[in-house]
Amino acid sequence: MMDTLFADRIHDVPRSFIREILKVAPDPSVISFAGGLPNRDFFPVRELREATEKVFATRGTGIFQYSNSEGLTELREYISKRYTTKFNLDVPAERILITSGSQQGLDLLGKTILNRGDRLVIEEPGYLGAIQAFSIYRPAFLPVPVSDNGMDLSRLREAVISGNPKLMYTVPNFQNPSGISYPGQNRKKIADILDGTKTLLIEDDPYGDLRFSGSPEPSFYNLLPDQTILLGSFSKVVVPGFRLGWIVAPQKAMEKLVIAKQATDLHTSHFTQWILYQYLIDHDIDDHIRAIVQAYGSQCRAMQESIKRYLPEEVSCTTPKGGMFLWARLPGNMSSLRLFEIASREKVIFVPGDPFYINRKDMNTLRLNFSCVDETTIDIGIQRLGAAIGELL
Amino acid sequence: MMDTLFADRIHDVPRSFIREILKVAPDPSVISFAGGLPNRDFFPVRELREATEKVFATRGTGIFQYSNSEGLTELREYISKRYTTKFNLDVPAERILITSGSQQGLDLLGKTILNRGDRLVIEEPGYLGAIQAFSIYRPAFLPVPVSDNGMDLSRLREAVISGNPKLMYTVPNFQNPSGISYPGQNRKKIADILDGTKTLLIEDDPYGDLRFSGSPEPSFYNLLPDQTILLGSFSKVVVPGFRLGWIVAPQKAMEKLVIAKQATDLHTSHFTQWILYQYLIDHDIDDHIRAIVQAYGSQCRAMQESIKRYLPEEVSCTTPKGGMFLWARLPGNMSSLRLFEIASREKVIFVPGDPFYINRKDMNTLRLNFSCVDETTIDIGIQRLGAAIGELL
Repeated sequence: MMDTLFADRIHDVPRSFIREILKVAPDPSVISFAGGLPNRDFFPVRELREATEKVFATRGTGIFQYSNSEGLTELREYISKRYTTKFNLDVPAERILITSGSQQGLDLLGKTILNRGDRLVIEEPGYLGAIQAFSIYRPAFLPVPVSDNGMDLSRLREAVISGNPKLMYTVPNFQNPSGISYPGQNRKKIADILDGTKTLLIEDDPYGDLRFSGSPEPSFYNLLPDQTILLGSFSKVVVPGFRLGWIVAPQKAMEKLVIAKQATDLHTSHFTQWILYQYLIDHDIDDHIRAIVQAYGSQCRAMQESIKRYLPEEVSCTTPKGGMFLWARLPGNMSSLRLFEIASREKVIFVPGDPFYINRKDMNTLRLNFSCVDETTIDIGIQRLGAAIGELL
Repeated sequence: MMDTLFADRIHDVPRSFIREILKVAPDPSVISFAGGLPNRDFFPVRELREATEKVFATRGTGIFQYSNSEGLTELREYISKRYTTKFNLDVPAERILITSGSQQGLDLLGKTILNRGDRLVIEEPGYLGAIQAFSIYRPAFLPVPVSDNGMDLSRLREAVISGNPKLMYTVPNFQNPSGISYPGQNRKKIADILDGTKTLLIEDDPYGDLRFSGSPEPSFYNLLPDQTILLGSFSKVVVPGFRLGWIVAPQKAMEKLVIAKQATDLHTSHFTQWILYQYLIDHDIDDHIRAIVQAYGSQCRAMQESIKRYLPEEVSCTTPKGGMFLWARLPGNMSSLRLFEIASREKVIFVPGDPFYINRKDMNTLRLNFSCVDETTIDIGIQRLGAAIGELL
């Protein structure tokens, strides 16, 4: 009976290769660049503990009751204010919906917007969590390549003209998996291409705060205000474990998103929202972010230096200006899946590129995470990776 | 642009009349039987505070990191053990998926199982949250009437034979909205009707612990083990604000549900799961439940007595043996929507029956909540309701 039971849509969702890798009981002798996690050394646990005590001491039992689907008003107002003061973006609190992490933002957007077969522009390589979330709603993906130069504009133009896509999904700052960012000029040209079309742009920005070089680039929310939905998250700058993110959407979309949120899980826990809010008003989040950025920046530079030292010249890498990832391309058509097998034996792992593509296999690309590994370990790990590549060459 | 943007599915979701009612700024002079909330006087806030302090003191930073989609192993084992010791049900921990409330369980089941147009048996009246969650996946609902005698068996037989439904959704204990429970014999006959068919039964049991009269009836999970998915929740016995519930599913369905959970929000907060788990192992939850049950039982009896005293004989009511709701049927074809208007002026509110039906309007039924109102207030409120009905008669 179970074989005929399931909905067609669930067969379309790719299994998470990453979760499969992470499930393997961690062998302490293996160096992992495969993670996608923020560094737990920067979780402000003591401060969250104080915030929690304060919430218990000052808020009533009401924080444990059912509550509204939009999210905690105070937290939404905090987010709104930070957009104004820090990013010069005008985001009214009533256009912010609190979600259970950005991942839920993607699910709610798929749920409210995508009919089966609707076209959706996605970056190539693209964020696996987004591919999974949207796959549930069975769109036709239109992959458009990205690089350190941003999005391939002629491919985008082609996709928009011939595909008439309903959505375009981007992570313009320090993208997962590639670590690339769209230069300002590239963003402006993307906005020009989309302006006036029926394509709604989803700007997913979980890493935007984690810039360790260069200057901030304009947000699509500024460049294309009527067509942009913005996603944000506290997972990379405070803790992922609260599962707290948000969607910024036009009023009409907000109404539909709130209906979808009700149908999906009524609302996100207000208890954790209160704790996070208390933490945010009692501390300067930007001080905290600076400490994270300093560490990730050093770790990224260490990885880049080790790459120069140990990997053959034919391996090309992106140049991240922030975030947690770096993307490497192997020489010729060397399969990164094949490399993964050999590298595992050399006791270093990474995520092969395949799951970040739509319908492409045996790619010669791979994702390297630098947020969770110290500089000495990075050096040893990249040396091992170099040895593994040497075996394959 | 916004008008053509949205997916067809989102237009199918009924707006929550209940949330609309609850949104109205509460006028303290209005007595509300419209709520669907557990009584916050029974939230174990002091105990949760202690549990939280213990979690901070004894668990590492890991509780704030990304974690597995299935949920906290310790909590799943606790749930498994309680099923065995308290309900004599064999539920292995690996078949339990922690969800963000039972509402998310419904969304995940719809997501993994329902293709558009699949038939789904639903109780009439049925739980609005389930109607909303499933509507997203666009099934054809087959409503089957329920009463204090349980489910209408001939109507169920007809629906199963002619409709070949993929799912059947029930709340067999102290149902929302009606407060009814299925008698044991009725359950056995339902199991006989479904046995060997392709219909999977969803047994949603958020209120099962809240029995204040009669004896427990067998679970469908026992009567129809290969075809039953069980949903549970901590919202009614601890607090709703943590948004913690669970699904018990056969192994094959678990695999799909975990994929859906990943795509939907990666995982539910492990921080709140740790706190809840600490609370559960440090206290006897059944002591706590007894206190809730005693209060709800008294309040239900008070409501029944006031109904006898103030409502015309032609108003018939269900006889709840537990839970939080009672269901009334007005004489003739008196519209409960019309009564709502008059009752609001008399300063008492309730939820008119309409939203609990599929495609039926102007019903003569209504839901009365007794969990959040003390006995004196119940008496005054029902007296006002009697006056309003008198005006309409």
